[in-house]
Formats: sequence, C-alpha cells, structure tokens
Amino acid sequence: MPKSPKQQSKSERGKLAAAGTATLAEIARQAGVSAPTVSKVLNGRAHVAPATRNKVEELLRDHGYRRKRGVARPRPSGLLELVFHELISLWATEIIRGAENVARQEGLTLVLSESAGREEMGLSWVDGVLTRDPAGVILIMSNLTAEQSSLLVSRDVPFVVMDPAGSPADDVPSIGTTNWQGGYTATRHLLDLGHRRIGVIGGPAGVLCSRARIDGYRAALETGGVMSDSELIRHGTFQHDAGYHIGKELLSVADRPTALFTGNDIQAMGVYQAARELGLRIPEDLSVVGFDDLPISAWMGPPLTTVRQPLVDMAEAAVRLVLELGRGEQPGMRRLELATSLVVRDSTAPPPVSR
Amino acid sequence: MPKSPKQQSKSERGKLAAAGTATLAEIARQAGVSAPTVSKVLNGRAHVAPATRNKVEELLRDHGYRRKRGVARPRPSGLLELVFHELISLWATEIIRGAENVARQEGLTLVLSESAGREEMGLSWVDGVLTRDPAGVILIMSNLTAEQSSLLVSRDVPFVVMDPAGSPADDVPSIGTTNWQGGYTATRHLLDLGHRRIGVIGGPAGVLCSRARIDGYRAALETGGVMSDSELIRHGTFQHDAGYHIGKELLSVADRPTALFTGNDIQAMGVYQAARELGLRIPEDLSVVGFDDLPISAWMGPPLTTVRQPLVDMAEAAVRLVLELGRGEQPGMRRLELATSLVVRDSTAPPPVSR
Repeated sequence: MPKSPKQQSKSERGKLAAAGTATLAEIARQAGVSAPTVSKVLNGRAHVAPATRNKVEELLRDHGYRRKRGVARPRPSGLLELVFHELISLWATEIIRGAENVARQEGLTLVLSESAGREEMGLSWVDGVLTRDPAGVILIMSNLTAEQSSLLVSRDVPFVVMDPAGSPADDVPSIGTTNWQGGYTATRHLLDLGHRRIGVIGGPAGVLCSRARIDGYRAALETGGVMSDSELIRHGTFQHDAGYHIGKELLSVADRPTALFTGNDIQAMGVYQAARELGLRIPEDLSVVGFDDLPISAWMGPPLTTVRQPLVDMAEAAVRLVLELGRGEQPGMRRLELATSLVVRDSTAPPPVSR
Repeated sequence: MPKSPKQQSKSERGKLAAAGTATLAEIARQAGVSAPTVSKVLNGRAHVAPATRNKVEELLRDHGYRRKRGVARPRPSGLLELVFHELISLWATEIIRGAENVARQEGLTLVLSESAGREEMGLSWVDGVLTRDPAGVILIMSNLTAEQSSLLVSRDVPFVVMDPAGSPADDVPSIGTTNWQGGYTATRHLLDLGHRRIGVIGGPAGVLCSRARIDGYRAALETGGVMSDSELIRHGTFQHDAGYHIGKELLSVADRPTALFTGNDIQAMGVYQAARELGLRIPEDLSVVGFDDLPISAWMGPPLTTVRQPLVDMAEAAVRLVLELGRGEQPGMRRLELATSLVVRDSTAPPPVSR
C-alpha cells in the first residue's frame, strides 16, 4: 500500500529537522562564530553584523537547516502579511476582503506591503518580515528571489504565492485560477453567439496568467474552426488606459472585430469608453467580455459579461494554506487552481448582421 | 503677549506628566496591587487579570495619568494602523494609497483592521492595538468610546480620526473635508446650468458628512431663489444599490428632477443604471453629480461630474499628523478640513427644454 501524504510528510519532517539540529554547532565552527550567534541569525534577531549574518545564512541554507516542523511555534505578533505588486488596484480590494474574512476568524491582523511595481522585493523587505515574525506571508503577483525564499524557510515563516505572475519554483505553494479555461470559455461564448472577428487585449506579454488566457482564446478559435489573426492579439498594462488606447486601435481598422475579450474588467471599462467615442453601441455593434468579475462590472453600462476569477475565495484559500503550513501540517494540495466561470450579462450579443 | 500654542502645550505636557508620575505608587496602593503590576498595565503587557487591569486602568484614568510627552518613545513595531468602518469599499483603496505613500517614506508598515459595520470598536480591538504598540492609529469613519480613547491616550498611542462619521469630542485630532462647501458647489453648478428640480441622495441620515453636504445643497438652492422640496431629498447607504433604487424612485415621479446630486460616485453608478433602464439619457435628459472623484468616475459612461474629496491627500495628512503627535509635538492644527473641488466632466448639461 502506498504511503498516505500524511505519513510521508511526517517522516520527511523528521529527517529535515534532524539534519538541521545535527549541524548547528558545525555551522558555528565553519562560520567562525559562536553557537549563540548562529541561533540569533536563525531566530531573526537583530545585532548581528550583515556580513556575519550572510555567511551564517548561507551555511544554514547549504546544510538544509530549518526549524523543526510539526511543532507549532507561537506567533506572538498575530500578524498576517499581504504583499502586493501594486496596492492601489480594485483587484487588491477583493483580495484584502478575502484575507480579512479568514484573518478575523483566526484572530489575526492584516499587514500590507507593496512591492511598488518591482516584481521582486528588496532584501530590506525580508528584514522587516523577519522582525515582525508574522503567522504567514501571502505574495500577490510578487516573486521572491531564491535567497529571500530560503531566508523565510529557514526562519519558518510560511508563505504562499497568489496568482503567480511568473513561474514560481516547483516547491513554492501557490493559489491560482484556471486562466487558460477562462480564456477558452470567454472565446467559446463569443463564437457561439456567431462572432468570427474576435480581438483580445492581454496584460503585459511576460505575465503568465495573461499568456494562459490568450492560449485559451487561441484554442477556442482553432477548435471552432476560426483562423486566429495576430493583428487582433494585443498586450498592454492591466489599466483602464490600455483598454482605451488599444481598444481604439483595434476598433479603428477597416475590418474591425465585432467582439473584444479584455485582460480584466478595468481594461473593459477603457474599451467601453473607446466604443462610446467611436459611436459604437455595446452590445449591438460590439460585444465585450472582461475578466475578474469585480463588483463594478455589474454596474457598468451595460453590465459587463465577464470571466469570474474567484478572488475572495482565492485569498481565503491562500490564507488557510499558509496557516496550515505554519502549523507544521503538510497539506495535500500545495498548488491549487480555483475554477473560473463565465458570468453572462448585457455586453455580449450576436454580431451585427451587416456593417 | 499671548502664549504661542507651543509654549502652552509645553507647560501642559509638563503638568500632566508630573501628575502621572507622582501618583504611580499611590495607584498601586489604591488598587491593592504591586507597582510592577501597575507598570505592566500601563505598558500594555499581557499576564494581568482582566479585573485587576480594569481597576488599574480606571485609577490611571481618574488620576489623569499618561506617559511623559515630548519624549519620543521608540516604536519597535514600526506599524501604522488603519481602522476602517468597512474595508471593502473603493473609497478605502484611496485612503490606503495615501497612507502607504507616507508609511513608505517613514519606514512604517501598514496594519489594517475593520470595525465590520459597527461604528464603535470592541474593547478586544483596543487590546490588540496595545499589544501591537503601533506608531499611530488612523480611524476612518470609526469612533472610539471615551474608554477606548483614554486607553490609547494613557499608553501614548496617538490617533487621528479621518472624516468623522459622528461628532468627535473636541480634543480628538481629525482630518475631514469641506463637505458643506462640496454640496454647495455641486448644487450651484446645476443651478448655473439652469436646473430647478434638483434631487439629492445622501448617505445614512445620521452620518454628519452627508448631512453637511445636504445642508450645502439647501443653502445653494435658497441663495439661488429655488424652494427646496423635501420630496427630492432622500437618504440611503453609500452603496450602488441605494443609488439605483432611490434613483429609480426619484426619476419615476410625475414632475421628476432634471438633475441628481448623489452621496458618492458609487451611488452615481446606481443612478446611471436606473436612468438606462428608464430610457433617460445622461446628460441630455438627466444631469448627475457624484462625490469623491474615485478613479472610476472618469471611466463611467459618460464620465462623471463629481465633487473631488482629496482622499489620498487626507490620508497623507492624517498619517503626518499622527506621527507628529507620536513624536510629542503639538501641531498647530489638530483639526483640519481639506478643500473639495468640483470636477466637471460629461454627466452635466442644461436641462431638457421640454419634456
């Protein structure tokens, strides 16, 4: 009989903890420092010279040292950290809401930080985290360097990446959504309505979630027997401006698309504005499908058909996962994709019969 | 020569600190506990029985005890707390953005909590604050009880109320906006366009900021020689639903208004939906003015004319004020109202000539 994940994880945990404990004095010797200094570094305390600390960190990493798992360490701070790529988006509001739902139940308080447009956080940020010693860290569209990641691991600060912008290392726990499926379903819906000229506005070209959606779009076109036209595939930021400017471009060509699938609901608002200025009615002249299903998508004129990404549920799942990891449990699923679903409202209809 | 505020405050500070120091042993005696126990309570440490703590707190309050001011106490936590009435609003996003701007400069990390629809926070929340020992607390649309307020004062945790929902006590530092002026200017703009039947949708009747805006609306009507009609003055939540339902009511009466001034931009989105469903065009058949100037107001169809409330600036000012208080400074202005301004976009026009 194969071992259950729980049995497996228990033995793994024991091994790792043992390996760590055995080499502590050895690490002190190799680093040329006292054992208490190694202990200070390990426990994230201050008053260790940066050079010394780096050396000790490196040795701790090399020896695969980590605090004994399965022994829940009290977290006196009661803090839960959310790290955003960009704090100001409406998207962030939904994630904060989901995280707050679980934090309230668990008696934890939310801490926010922002990587301010940089995809990888500065080391000073990690220093701050180690000082605050939170119950867990949720990284939203933000990646850690291998060094930062191993610093958190060595101090037993659990973390989960939400909706990874890049490709997280295989051992990083993550929560995402079925982006490819979302792109496929949105495009399938437009094909079923009779559209053949379907444009797409993605997020920045390097962002994986956006790429997956566009791949889903292509797959739907191909299986629907429609040739994809690279002229109709564009990339931009996830902002209103991108929807407006790219929308205006796409809608100004001679053989303009009769439908647009946008990277998110905010871009869709930009497309609405472009359509208004060009005198195109939604959905009579142009169908629009968004992505996210933010509350405002239901309030747009007309209410937006969009791919629901369950951001609140995703944030709740991410917090639950990080707390499980923090309790030393080994959850069965460390990499989850929550399902998208199509929410059909009034911005999609059959294409105009003639131009 | 009258004393400057700085001189005045300095002598006050000295007196208070002296009063506090003198009675510390006395408080221990009166409470029937040891001096270290009083010290624990004063410093917000754990391991004091609730009954004991309450008794000591009460005595500390009665004796006007507070930590010596003017001596900046190090705040190892480096935290800045934002307390929201309701975390999930788009409004909150702007405030978080402003607070984050200053927090980043000052090397502070944001902590969020939510009073979850209750206007007064539970005592357990204060316990959490005292444990976290933040550099300051910003309360947004949330009031403190006298007890909570004096607990924070006695532990020297500075706080500022932002856009007070009720009437904060005179000694509570606060940052607001010129709500009355905003209501006046919005209504004046509609009168200048030729509107005479102008409806208003406020926030909940008890909320002071909303009341001030409606008073400004009334003042503009009266000085413009237009009788105000109580039928056209309604109250609701600050949500989309309220704008939609109340908007539909107001626009369905025989002598319907030609213009609506809403409690915020989100309500205005609800009015847009009501108008669409009733076949009324904005601005041809109906002019709409919002309040707040959230980013989405510029993206609505048509872009919304609205009263700009400088939420980002207000949050920045609130954080700067709380940090000044935390450094033991006595800022000249402890109660500030930042100016509103009218942002004219495409949702307002002269009223239709005939129905």
